[in-house]
Amino acid sequence: MSVSTPHRIIIDCDPGHDDMAAILLAASHPAIRIEAITTVCGNASLENTTRNALRIVDAFGLDVPVHAGAVLPLLHRYEFPAAFHGPSGMDSAGVELPQTERKADAVGAVEAIIAKADANPGEISLVVIGPMTNVALALALRPDLAQKLKQIVFMGGSATEGNVTPAAEFNTWADAEAARIVFKSGAKLVMFGLNLTHQTLLSRADIAEVRAAVSGDNPVADIMTFYCGTYYAFAGEDKPGAPLHDPCAVAWLIDPSIFGIEQLPGEVIIGDGPGYGQTLIDFRPQDPRHDTRVKNVGVAMTVDARRFTELVTPGLIWGAKRYAA
Amino acid sequence: MSVSTPHRIIIDCDPGHDDMAAILLAASHPAIRIEAITTVCGNASLENTTRNALRIVDAFGLDVPVHAGAVLPLLHRYEFPAAFHGPSGMDSAGVELPQTERKADAVGAVEAIIAKADANPGEISLVVIGPMTNVALALALRPDLAQKLKQIVFMGGSATEGNVTPAAEFNTWADAEAARIVFKSGAKLVMFGLNLTHQTLLSRADIAEVRAAVSGDNPVADIMTFYCGTYYAFAGEDKPGAPLHDPCAVAWLIDPSIFGIEQLPGEVIIGDGPGYGQTLIDFRPQDPRHDTRVKNVGVAMTVDARRFTELVTPGLIWGAKRYAA
Amino acid sequence: MSVSTPHRIIIDCDPGHDDMAAILLAASHPAIRIEAITTVCGNASLENTTRNALRIVDAFGLDVPVHAGAVLPLLHRYEFPAAFHGPSGMDSAGVELPQTERKADAVGAVEAIIAKADANPGEISLVVIGPMTNVALALALRPDLAQKLKQIVFMGGSATEGNVTPAAEFNTWADAEAARIVFKSGAKLVMFGLNLTHQTLLSRADIAEVRAAVSGDNPVADIMTFYCGTYYAFAGEDKPGAPLHDPCAVAWLIDPSIFGIEQLPGEVIIGDGPGYGQTLIDFRPQDPRHDTRVKNVGVAMTVDARRFTELVTPGLIWGAKRYAA
Amino acid sequence: MSVSTPHRIIIDCDPGHDDMAAILLAASHPAIRIEAITTVCGNASLENTTRNALRIVDAFGLDVPVHAGAVLPLLHRYEFPAAFHGPSGMDSAGVELPQTERKADAVGAVEAIIAKADANPGEISLVVIGPMTNVALALALRPDLAQKLKQIVFMGGSATEGNVTPAAEFNTWADAEAARIVFKSGAKLVMFGLNLTHQTLLSRADIAEVRAAVSGDNPVADIMTFYCGTYYAFAGEDKPGAPLHDPCAVAWLIDPSIFGIEQLPGEVIIGDGPGYGQTLIDFRPQDPRHDTRVKNVGVAMTVDARRFTELVTPGLIWGAKRYAA
Repeated sequence: MSVSTPHRIIIDCDPGHDDMAAILLAASHPAIRIEAITTVCGNASLENTTRNALRIVDAFGLDVPVHAGAVLPLLHRYEFPAAFHGPSGMDSAGVELPQTERKADAVGAVEAIIAKADANPGEISLVVIGPMTNVALALALRPDLAQKLKQIVFMGGSATEGNVTPAAEFNTWADAEAARIVFKSGAKLVMFGLNLTHQTLLSRADIAEVRAAVSGDNPVADIMTFYCGTYYAFAGEDKPGAPLHDPCAVAWLIDPSIFGIEQLPGEVIIGDGPGYGQTLIDFRPQDPRHDTRVKNVGVAMTVDARRFTELVTPGLIWGAKRYAA
Repeated sequence: MSVSTPHRIIIDCDPGHDDMAAILLAASHPAIRIEAITTVCGNASLENTTRNALRIVDAFGLDVPVHAGAVLPLLHRYEFPAAFHGPSGMDSAGVELPQTERKADAVGAVEAIIAKADANPGEISLVVIGPMTNVALALALRPDLAQKLKQIVFMGGSATEGNVTPAAEFNTWADAEAARIVFKSGAKLVMFGLNLTHQTLLSRADIAEVRAAVSGDNPVADIMTFYCGTYYAFAGEDKPGAPLHDPCAVAWLIDPSIFGIEQLPGEVIIGDGPGYGQTLIDFRPQDPRHDTRVKNVGVAMTVDARRFTELVTPGLIWGAKRYAA
Repeated sequence: MSVSTPHRIIIDCDPGHDDMAAILLAASHPAIRIEAITTVCGNASLENTTRNALRIVDAFGLDVPVHAGAVLPLLHRYEFPAAFHGPSGMDSAGVELPQTERKADAVGAVEAIIAKADANPGEISLVVIGPMTNVALALALRPDLAQKLKQIVFMGGSATEGNVTPAAEFNTWADAEAARIVFKSGAKLVMFGLNLTHQTLLSRADIAEVRAAVSGDNPVADIMTFYCGTYYAFAGEDKPGAPLHDPCAVAWLIDPSIFGIEQLPGEVIIGDGPGYGQTLIDFRPQDPRHDTRVKNVGVAMTVDARRFTELVTPGLIWGAKRYAA
Repeated sequence: MSVSTPHRIIIDCDPGHDDMAAILLAASHPAIRIEAITTVCGNASLENTTRNALRIVDAFGLDVPVHAGAVLPLLHRYEFPAAFHGPSGMDSAGVELPQTERKADAVGAVEAIIAKADANPGEISLVVIGPMTNVALALALRPDLAQKLKQIVFMGGSATEGNVTPAAEFNTWADAEAARIVFKSGAKLVMFGLNLTHQTLLSRADIAEVRAAVSGDNPVADIMTFYCGTYYAFAGEDKPGAPLHDPCAVAWLIDPSIFGIEQLPGEVIIGDGPGYGQTLIDFRPQDPRHDTRVKNVGVAMTVDARRFTELVTPGLIWGAKRYAA
């Protein structure tokens, strides 16, 4: 990777604890330049995810506009998963990020994505770490965006098991129709699903390291402590750590050598059945000489978990220090 | 009806033969003021439906902007029904409308709908006579539009049989996900489905009347002759006329007393089954005292076919004369 | 119709109030010979529908074996509609049919249907007035039965609205997979759906006539009074009568001239969507010269309601008198 | 394992090459007693699978009745996968098994399964290595069979990828409604899906060993050579061997210590979408203290591939020698 030509990204997110971790990783690393943050309804209401994004921008002194996006999924209606992120969408086990007077930009998320891609064809990587409603709307309004965006790197779906249902991961389940639009768009897609993110762990030791980095208030450590706590309460206190979903997409942009990616055919299940929101990846072995399938998704399959942690933890520490400064 | 306060409408369409008939009815009648025409992929590609809309505007001297909308349905992919409308989407059995240099407005259909509704809250009736992709995108981007629009009056769906499949009418089938978004939006909806439009007929005598109205070229008569011809070829030459779908929505705005409307619960079937695109209307008899169902659609059930024809044929004649002038 | 060669029928049922009416009509009329009654889970548990069938046989002195069938639908699980038929499946507003010591035959319903059809190829009409589980199982075990049975005449489905859901009638909804098997079987099918049965009415006057036929206990009148009462409670007390679904299938065998039947393509919707259990009939007008669709169902569309009542009420009176005798 | 009390099994199959391998393993091993072979439409038509079963019984001198079962899946209609098993369903790359005059038993497969279970409650293991139509019909006719059978051990489904579609393995896909009935039946289920069977391999060396076991005609080696050849043609000639699906279920009965089984919730996807036939297993980690899910399936997850081969190859050799004898 060359720091001299950083990735120009838009982070489309629904903060969200691991969203904050992803934003801090991106903001702290010279290989990335965040050009905009767009928000979407997902882990919490759009009002809350937008407020949380603004609090992040403010608390860590990021010079990035926040554009508010879709209030609701295209069709799906669901309860916000307050058990995982708390009512605010970014609850803390201790100190919270301060409230802010900062406002979202007057331009909406979808319009901002379109404008940025139009102005910089082939340059912008869209990093999607929430439901895909904004992206789907942008692609529906402007199918040519699939070619104008450099790529869509997303946390979502799974090549194996789900979390919110046996079949589906939350982000794709929360708006499966939107995810299906994106999968069918022809854009270059790189997917970090549960099959991958469950190989990454934010351990108690990692959080301790973040906490030790500063004296005084440490909302970064407190927020990630809340996040891990809800995971342990669900999956079992014996778990060695909590999967750190959203930062995977950013980490790959910084250092793709940490990950193993397979190019495969993939589609998103919609309809009324129990598969709603599943990302169906075609893993069938086929002789390459006869294989005519369209391999529309780069599916992250393996990760060097240690190197991943060595990348992500410094981002959290950067945030903790920046807040303290 | 009072001519002094005409309905301010946007016609969202995919011309389309009966789309032309609907536009002529609206343009010719003092009870209607067309503020914009927006186009959508449906009977033909967006390129063709937009070109056809521009030809209509030009040929009949309408002073209305044309805004091009969705290139593709949200998710559905299908062959354009060239058997019904010809490759152009508006083929003629004789003289065609002239080509035009006129261009679509720089503002897109979705943006135009949003802007017009924002600027005129409660004033604009959206007359949708093609697939609902544009409307769905507008509502997804701006759910509050459901209240800002006066109403959405549409030709689409069916309370009984379909046409493109046993279950589904073309417009709702062509983008059932979009139609479902509209049905769930909370906007005031008035539906003119096949159950209604099949009660209306453009007869051979009606076309003869249009033809007799002018000497010389008569593309209006020729285009409608093509339209009826494809219907007869499909449904049988013994049929007394062809259903005139799209003008129903406009006719109701002009004179609602022609129609019988029932307020009922309705939803649109999506998913992978044979019901895709069906508008499922809940006709179950229920004691009004216990009936808690949300009746989200005004479903046109009956029409005075004679009075309907007496309204529509003059619109076609107006077009034939205006072209000849 | 010729009384000299009565229809030899098996009644596959889930009594059920209108099942009783159908059985009485069949038992009372010389044009019908009931060779067996088979029971199925539907309006109530199999235990209850079988007990009710045995009580009917006993109370009215029918010389017919009762064979118990499917305990559960193939896949669907639902609450029995106790609101409509009461917990017993055949509750009475007054006197009930007496309990009986009579037992179901040792041979099960499916085996009995197969054996009867095998022994009398082309002779047996299967009259299905409950969910189609038994019939589907028989056809799955023995696809050739589709040709060995003379016909399957059934109350179920709808060419228009549903009752248990907006899309579906109870019998097809209660086991839509079974109904789909039957629709695809190739057997001759004649369907009496809600679109037809809602044209028939058992009025308060009809019940009064049944009641007046005998002095003393009149469980027939009492049971039908319960049936109408639950209908009025649901649909409104202003309704002139309750639809008499199940006897339609028997009435058609007795006098087909009362009904108008159209031969049409039909299929049953399964899957997880809101259309589950819908009988999708293809009513699209098509020029007969190009029409290659398989028209697998005779769909009853019209009924002479007066003549129907004149057929059915005497059956109920026959039962009332027979009970009193 | 104790040879003194062999497993009493019915093999429900659609031979099928790996079906033959499974039958030979079962027939050759003292830990198993085959009490009946039941056949089903699957890899080929019922006529062919039954003929193949009879040829196997005859060629290898098995003293086992063959009962023919379902001619068709409950609802699914598909082309037989002739590319994999050849038109006969058990094509050979050399010598074929001889034709036979042997006939299937007069009692059908479903009736035989019911009778055997009734006569030996808690004793019979049903080994299902074809589509589950017969089993589903037996369970639909007699839900109590779920408790009367000792267990249903089956090759089918997958906890990961499919083969016939991205989502589904052939056996569950060929009759997903049947598989769903079985999964919901409450019977003890042990599943050997593609996730497991793809860990087993019949290598070229294994086949060479079978071939070397006898001089002269060796249809066992020839049939397995055909089987591996079609696999290589599809998946690539570089593959080290072909997965040996069906024998897994038998091998587990003989020596469960070869396999790792997890008890998990599972259901079968039906409906019209791309997930049809998928066995959706719920792998979500959950704190056991709050876990209320019904874990209805024992899912084979791991296999000691070497020990598996050491069990299966002798079965094939046994067959080769027995044929030669």
